[in-house]
Amino acid sequence: MAGNSFGEIFRITTFGESHGKAIGVVIDGCPAGLQIDLELIQRDLDRRKPGQSAITTQRKESDTFEVLSGIFEGKSTGSPIAMMIRNEDQKSEDYKHLMEAFRPSHADFTYEMKYGLRDHRGGGRSSARETAARVIAGAIARQLLKKEGIEIAAYVSSVGTLHLEKDYQQLDLSKTDENIVRCPDEATASKMIELIRETRGNGDTIGGIVTCVIKGCPVGLGEPVFDKLHADLGKAMLSINAVHGFEYGSGFDGTQKYGSENNDEFFMSADNKISTKTNHSGGIQGGISNGMDIYFNVAFKPVATIMQSQNSVDKEGHEVEVKGRGRHDPCVVPRAVPIVEAMAALVLVDHWLRNKLSKI
Amino acid sequence: MAGNSFGEIFRITTFGESHGKAIGVVIDGCPAGLQIDLELIQRDLDRRKPGQSAITTQRKESDTFEVLSGIFEGKSTGSPIAMMIRNEDQKSEDYKHLMEAFRPSHADFTYEMKYGLRDHRGGGRSSARETAARVIAGAIARQLLKKEGIEIAAYVSSVGTLHLEKDYQQLDLSKTDENIVRCPDEATASKMIELIRETRGNGDTIGGIVTCVIKGCPVGLGEPVFDKLHADLGKAMLSINAVHGFEYGSGFDGTQKYGSENNDEFFMSADNKISTKTNHSGGIQGGISNGMDIYFNVAFKPVATIMQSQNSVDKEGHEVEVKGRGRHDPCVVPRAVPIVEAMAALVLVDHWLRNKLSKI
Amino acid sequence: MAGNSFGEIFRITTFGESHGKAIGVVIDGCPAGLQIDLELIQRDLDRRKPGQSAITTQRKESDTFEVLSGIFEGKSTGSPIAMMIRNEDQKSEDYKHLMEAFRPSHADFTYEMKYGLRDHRGGGRSSARETAARVIAGAIARQLLKKEGIEIAAYVSSVGTLHLEKDYQQLDLSKTDENIVRCPDEATASKMIELIRETRGNGDTIGGIVTCVIKGCPVGLGEPVFDKLHADLGKAMLSINAVHGFEYGSGFDGTQKYGSENNDEFFMSADNKISTKTNHSGGIQGGISNGMDIYFNVAFKPVATIMQSQNSVDKEGHEVEVKGRGRHDPCVVPRAVPIVEAMAALVLVDHWLRNKLSKI
Amino acid sequence: MAGNSFGEIFRITTFGESHGKAIGVVIDGCPAGLQIDLELIQRDLDRRKPGQSAITTQRKESDTFEVLSGIFEGKSTGSPIAMMIRNEDQKSEDYKHLMEAFRPSHADFTYEMKYGLRDHRGGGRSSARETAARVIAGAIARQLLKKEGIEIAAYVSSVGTLHLEKDYQQLDLSKTDENIVRCPDEATASKMIELIRETRGNGDTIGGIVTCVIKGCPVGLGEPVFDKLHADLGKAMLSINAVHGFEYGSGFDGTQKYGSENNDEFFMSADNKISTKTNHSGGIQGGISNGMDIYFNVAFKPVATIMQSQNSVDKEGHEVEVKGRGRHDPCVVPRAVPIVEAMAALVLVDHWLRNKLSKI
Repeated sequence: MAGNSFGEIFRITTFGESHGKAIGVVIDGCPAGLQIDLELIQRDLDRRKPGQSAITTQRKESDTFEVLSGIFEGKSTGSPIAMMIRNEDQKSEDYKHLMEAFRPSHADFTYEMKYGLRDHRGGGRSSARETAARVIAGAIARQLLKKEGIEIAAYVSSVGTLHLEKDYQQLDLSKTDENIVRCPDEATASKMIELIRETRGNGDTIGGIVTCVIKGCPVGLGEPVFDKLHADLGKAMLSINAVHGFEYGSGFDGTQKYGSENNDEFFMSADNKISTKTNHSGGIQGGISNGMDIYFNVAFKPVATIMQSQNSVDKEGHEVEVKGRGRHDPCVVPRAVPIVEAMAALVLVDHWLRNKLSKI
Repeated sequence: MAGNSFGEIFRITTFGESHGKAIGVVIDGCPAGLQIDLELIQRDLDRRKPGQSAITTQRKESDTFEVLSGIFEGKSTGSPIAMMIRNEDQKSEDYKHLMEAFRPSHADFTYEMKYGLRDHRGGGRSSARETAARVIAGAIARQLLKKEGIEIAAYVSSVGTLHLEKDYQQLDLSKTDENIVRCPDEATASKMIELIRETRGNGDTIGGIVTCVIKGCPVGLGEPVFDKLHADLGKAMLSINAVHGFEYGSGFDGTQKYGSENNDEFFMSADNKISTKTNHSGGIQGGISNGMDIYFNVAFKPVATIMQSQNSVDKEGHEVEVKGRGRHDPCVVPRAVPIVEAMAALVLVDHWLRNKLSKI
Repeated sequence: MAGNSFGEIFRITTFGESHGKAIGVVIDGCPAGLQIDLELIQRDLDRRKPGQSAITTQRKESDTFEVLSGIFEGKSTGSPIAMMIRNEDQKSEDYKHLMEAFRPSHADFTYEMKYGLRDHRGGGRSSARETAARVIAGAIARQLLKKEGIEIAAYVSSVGTLHLEKDYQQLDLSKTDENIVRCPDEATASKMIELIRETRGNGDTIGGIVTCVIKGCPVGLGEPVFDKLHADLGKAMLSINAVHGFEYGSGFDGTQKYGSENNDEFFMSADNKISTKTNHSGGIQGGISNGMDIYFNVAFKPVATIMQSQNSVDKEGHEVEVKGRGRHDPCVVPRAVPIVEAMAALVLVDHWLRNKLSKI
Repeated sequence: MAGNSFGEIFRITTFGESHGKAIGVVIDGCPAGLQIDLELIQRDLDRRKPGQSAITTQRKESDTFEVLSGIFEGKSTGSPIAMMIRNEDQKSEDYKHLMEAFRPSHADFTYEMKYGLRDHRGGGRSSARETAARVIAGAIARQLLKKEGIEIAAYVSSVGTLHLEKDYQQLDLSKTDENIVRCPDEATASKMIELIRETRGNGDTIGGIVTCVIKGCPVGLGEPVFDKLHADLGKAMLSINAVHGFEYGSGFDGTQKYGSENNDEFFMSADNKISTKTNHSGGIQGGISNGMDIYFNVAFKPVATIMQSQNSVDKEGHEVEVKGRGRHDPCVVPRAVPIVEAMAALVLVDHWLRNKLSKI
């Protein structure tokens, strides 16, 4: 109800503020008997963590997590899995000057108004630091999905106006992590990195797009009419900090198409499975997965904290100037890749479990 | 859990199939004491109903609803409000030839696989007929919102490649219903109507975009971190049949911007309210409404049923040809306008109620 | 949230008032493919319906239900199952004199205060008429459970101070419906019927106890720590009108026992199953069914409406006298038997489905 | 869904096992701005903690909690409040001999069967140690309730066949904590303590009853028809380890009464409030609080672990003898008093928040 839980069956609740004692997550509903590889969790955390490269924020967090409950002798027990990360590098004094001022396009103003008070240190609960908790939970979800043959891979497809022109089918997604911007096309990646460096040099930030592909999803996931698979994927992505748009399959381009162009004809594939020749449906029909690849785009606005002076007001309504200090990302998409994957995994595992109940 | 409910506090559950006995909705959580104008409900139903103009399906449904419970002497009582519409014009024989075949880009195949059986008549539960139930509930939600000064207006901003170039600020949204395509710019509307007629003439269908604007929303609606206001709006829109994309505020365009361009500076407005000079945030910051206008775009793919022959397979995996009979819309966006408004109202009223609990 | 839904997966929402147009239920989450025998639903409704015997209210309702959605060719489709009963014998004028007065031990006062208004006709939503909707849903749940070998049987074990001294193991529960009080021991039944007749003759009402037994429940149902099987059974029973107590297994008597008396030792049964020698646990250990019989008692207070004059106050706080008119039950337990069974079935089917998700 | 959360708005999720690293709780939905006194939390924890007196288990836990998130400068922020207690005195070796054997009337067997594996150390998740997390959350709930004038007091009213004959109105509930058995009548308390000592001396355990009284509850709490206030109180109590029964108001005794005896007539009290002369309704009518005192009884069976030899079987179905080692309570009710209060507070605060939404 208060918005800090996600999922119906594989249900997570995250807690913690950017500069509080710890952030963490409780997973209720992970089936018992799942072998959990803690190193895979750490790997995804490392892909998300600050300070990992020259083009991310320089905040230093080891992001080492601790298992508090729910795992016994390497396996999930069916009891809640609680995990947490202690915050280390809390330079709260960086934020003292912001106690009173509202940073433009941040959540300062809306939190203050909604709750009547706020933990101003580092953005408190509104900080993207909270997404580390999602990555932990997502990394467990992925292990369950992997056993079922479902694989999720996201990558950066745009930074500013630099757009990767190839479709995911033309890319080798295993190369995504080979460069610091997480674009699997090396030539485009270089340009993106250069653009981000230049943007940071100007004390500015820039937006981008993350594309995500899910392979191996069985037919049947998604619960019409409201919990359509793409509706839950959309909500999951839009719940990530800075996301302003979501499209799947033919997406916004599809609005310009005729039905005769956009429809996906069925045929029997070589392995005798009912398949579609094209996949403008993005692997989902009527809100239910159809066995084809699922793919979607997630639009990230530029990070709001810039190192330039901006006009604003303070709590009392006085005009003030604010300028980012702290340590911030010039472009969020490289670190967003594991977050998009984690949220996709959480949606998929939840619907995979829900679908077990669809028929007698 | 099974996906037919929406909302946390103002919670609706819809029921009914396209060619079953009736469709309907139960609203649990409408506060007691709301004066309900039944004519306003019928008005929205009429805006959605089939056969309303030359560019919609010719199925004839009066879409007259009946109140079964929850309203006494004109007011909500706090008990569940149940309403239903009996289906009238059920030409199920139009669908007999589809008992076995899977229509391309329809939900036939996925429903059959997920549930092991399906009500094939008119698409059964997957038919957009279900959205009439949402419109009923949305029309009640709007009446509560209106008392609070919150107004919702949607309109058609694109049909195919025809795009309305003006922003909503440059339009008179009271004119939306003055033409059958529901585009408030008369010149563009004429072209859109012509394009839809031509498309229908070709036995084809075409996609489009609905834009929605919410004015008068108070500061504070939205529940971080997962139930951000735009995340719930996104899910609501993506749950509407044929929707493939959602963006709010600067949306996908914002991914190409610098932070210095995209940020919304705060200032004190003439009426001494904290406001933003620009509104790339689309009225939502950190997932919470900031008091500015909320606006978003919803992308509809072309309707899947076309009057042209297409290749497909049947349940047994035999190749077949299918061709739409029945009565279908050549373009869904004109009738989608009240559906988008209804879903927006349901999200807003739910968050308006949730926000009452945010502080002591 | 507003309290008119029950169950997590097999989730029902009931609607309707005693003297409104109709009462009904929507079931969301019934798995597809369940063969549904509508006559079995009617049979349970007939066991609950008013006017069925000399010791129940004489209100006449045929309680014929209509299926609105979710069943196709005799089977559940996985879509919401909506069913309703039109109200027929609405003598609302019987209640006119109660528009302003609050009947003692009724919900009149609390509804008026909570909602600011109320549908006073026949108790509106607070009437036990609502339980007909539960019986419909429960009758479907029972059909699913029966396929799994789970059988539920309730009976009247007390009326006033008349208590059936035999345990359920000493009774033939197939005889429960052979008399109008629904007590499977003929001698006790006769006395109970006599007591109820006498009570009615005095213009009074009397309380009683319903005992319920569930056989064939597999090991594993129940979700610790909050949704223990007996906790959900308890809530289900306490949600029935007039219920003031619930106990399972050794219940209140067990509080007087030593552990050495009350513990159930395990042994291997003749059919090589892990069983317990005694069953003070009532078939549930740690909140999870252990495969033994589940049994519990449900305490019903005397019906509040009596045909005697009582002191009360009206809305304005004036002292008034009220006296039941209308048509009421002198003792609720005979008609409560199918309601207890229905609620038990709803809990069991929900937990049976939930338990499918407990391990990989 | 998996059962480790409780409450709809003030929603808690507990985690942790008896002999794992920690136990804890996340509260989502505590309104912002609540001043939280951490010492009051510790006080309730101390009342529940093991080793507090001669008649409780001798396990030593300081039960010192740590706040992880959600409180800033002494106040709730509207973000999730996470708190945890590290486990200290884990003598897991006490349980090694039970790895394979199923203790009679424990959850060993049902957990093993439901989840396919179990954390056998100290009962793992099924241990009453989990209730410490509930007490933390309940202590916060109580602080919110106290501001609203709602006070909750529980006490021991029975141990075995020793029953406190006085009603709560005849007792001074401020004396409850003056003796180690928590019975406010000194004479009865002495006998109870003696009985528990004697029982422990015999290597046995004994059951009892906790009575709880809620004063100052406003009219209007409770959400018919399923989430009646007493139904949620009943579920809350039945979810506590070892509870086998719940009754409120006239309870099981009321089943023996006539309506003319049991009904509560309304009158205008001295302070001009609509009140009832008697209170057999237990402060709740139609599932909604009526402003009178709420009171109920909770039945606890004797603790299952006894220091006597008992017959059982092991995982392979071999007959074995088991005998309690470890450190256990001879009677659970003295330590159950703060747990009953905590669960009552959680139900009340949740319904207090829900009731804010009942009317326009």
